[in-house]
Amino acid sequence: MKTIPGLALVSADLVRVEHKMREAPHQDIEPLSMALDTLLKSGGKRVRPLLALLVSHLYDSLSDKVIALAAAVEMLHTATLVHDDLIDSARLRRGNPTLNAIWSPGATVLTGDFLFAWAANLAAQTESVRVMFIFSQTLMVICGGELGQLFHRPWRDQTRQDYDRRIYAKTASLFAAATEAAAVLASAPESKIKALRDYGHQLGMAFQIVDDVLDFVGTSKEMGKPVGSDVRQGIVTLPTLYYLGQNSDDKLLAQVLEGHANDGVVETLVARIREAGAIDAAMHDARNHVKQAQAALAGLPGNGYHQAMFDLAEFVVQRRI
Amino acid sequence: MKTIPGLALVSADLVRVEHKMREAPHQDIEPLSMALDTLLKSGGKRVRPLLALLVSHLYDSLSDKVIALAAAVEMLHTATLVHDDLIDSARLRRGNPTLNAIWSPGATVLTGDFLFAWAANLAAQTESVRVMFIFSQTLMVICGGELGQLFHRPWRDQTRQDYDRRIYAKTASLFAAATEAAAVLASAPESKIKALRDYGHQLGMAFQIVDDVLDFVGTSKEMGKPVGSDVRQGIVTLPTLYYLGQNSDDKLLAQVLEGHANDGVVETLVARIREAGAIDAAMHDARNHVKQAQAALAGLPGNGYHQAMFDLAEFVVQRRI
Repeated sequence: MKTIPGLALVSADLVRVEHKMREAPHQDIEPLSMALDTLLKSGGKRVRPLLALLVSHLYDSLSDKVIALAAAVEMLHTATLVHDDLIDSARLRRGNPTLNAIWSPGATVLTGDFLFAWAANLAAQTESVRVMFIFSQTLMVICGGELGQLFHRPWRDQTRQDYDRRIYAKTASLFAAATEAAAVLASAPESKIKALRDYGHQLGMAFQIVDDVLDFVGTSKEMGKPVGSDVRQGIVTLPTLYYLGQNSDDKLLAQVLEGHANDGVVETLVARIREAGAIDAAMHDARNHVKQAQAALAGLPGNGYHQAMFDLAEFVVQRRI
Repeated sequence: MKTIPGLALVSADLVRVEHKMREAPHQDIEPLSMALDTLLKSGGKRVRPLLALLVSHLYDSLSDKVIALAAAVEMLHTATLVHDDLIDSARLRRGNPTLNAIWSPGATVLTGDFLFAWAANLAAQTESVRVMFIFSQTLMVICGGELGQLFHRPWRDQTRQDYDRRIYAKTASLFAAATEAAAVLASAPESKIKALRDYGHQLGMAFQIVDDVLDFVGTSKEMGKPVGSDVRQGIVTLPTLYYLGQNSDDKLLAQVLEGHANDGVVETLVARIREAGAIDAAMHDARNHVKQAQAALAGLPGNGYHQAMFDLAEFVVQRRI
């Protein structure tokens, strides 16, 4: 599979979602229109809108409200990235300069805030109070997870539970919100809303584990950032956690995770983690999440969109980007 | 008038609003519970919840939803202050250390984001899509106004329209949102919803003009910040605008607004602005807004809450804090 499954089925809808995102008011304020243009032009995989759109087609319920929902979810994601890049002092995202690379911290904070408000407005355009709750609860989970990470325990004490919670907050919560909210708008039965939320949740867990694995196995050219960028920043992801479980006395671990290592040392550690089977163990877990996502689809309407969602889960663990 | 009119009428409701604000989820994340506690303990005048509560009583429509609305409005205000203090590098607010004074910028940004999400959740608790729209649109206006200010024109080119837009975005928009949303929840007729929005809007304009005047006439002890703190930061408020209109060739203006002045020079300029009648001119405008706020109340139910809202408008131009 080279292209994202389901993408071709909803390509016309995705164009509407892009237009919707650009409808933000107050674009007479120049920095806002420039920021919106920069952020939307630089693209992204649009996985979250894709999920919402596939669910709505599964129930043959595409509407302006679903387009607004898909735009809301992607805009929320975009707003969190604006603040994340500021917090991490990241200079590039998807090969383009970040907002904080070209603007003051203050302007970057405010632009992110504006995009949160625009995302909330798009969510309100669904005219569903329940969707508004899903939306606001998800943003609380995302921010709470990031704050928890800033005040995290020492790397040696981090557990699998810490990791699972963190990637749920970071990624799976918004995937789950996209599929759940689309099911709510489709007026699906409660049991199916729950199943679709589970699908999004499990898919998101798999997606983030693979993201964390790619940080070890991808080339820096593919990833647009140096190999091992997580360990360089002291972040313990699943491969490191597996390696740590069996090699807690490796002195390189402490050196790298505590920020005292040069590039050569980082590369040696990355090679050791690859060779120790930690990548295979992590990918095994990702595949388990994929199986659970696919299992959640049983009992949902059987049509081309169902198949696309099934294939999309498979794709998540096969992707290289 | 020494106490805020209407406050005694709703003091029990305000206790409920405080409790409601503290109901934020995820308080097992220690930095979040600490931040919430710090921010809510340090208090504030709670003018925005007061407005929502008075409007609801005017229509005898107090409910859990109104308590949630009042909490949402104050939480939104609190979240914007967290980011504002970070952007301005303010160390103190109401005599207490700001979050950015004790935490990293990253933790401060994320805490503000969390509070925005909690405010959105409180707004969703009104179960009114229309209130959600008012809420998200107001946040866009606030952020847009602040961004506009960061990229503002040179001080010499600033107009009264720039000033009016800025204080609408900064203050009047949220006052108007509080009164409008409470009227919506009260199922008031559309003409009365509009009148109540106007009341909040005009009151907010007066409130902010007085705030800007107090920066010139209050003592630093009363205000908790040095006299003339706006001009020190290069911000042109209404008294400066009036002074500038008649004394555009005063060399001290350029010196202070461009940040090249010591304390003595700032104090001389502040004294000149006071003596030039600029304060009186600004207060005259504030009183006009008060009259318009009071006029908007004509035709609304005549009860003790109506009178309190009338008196509250008067109080806004008499206050010293």
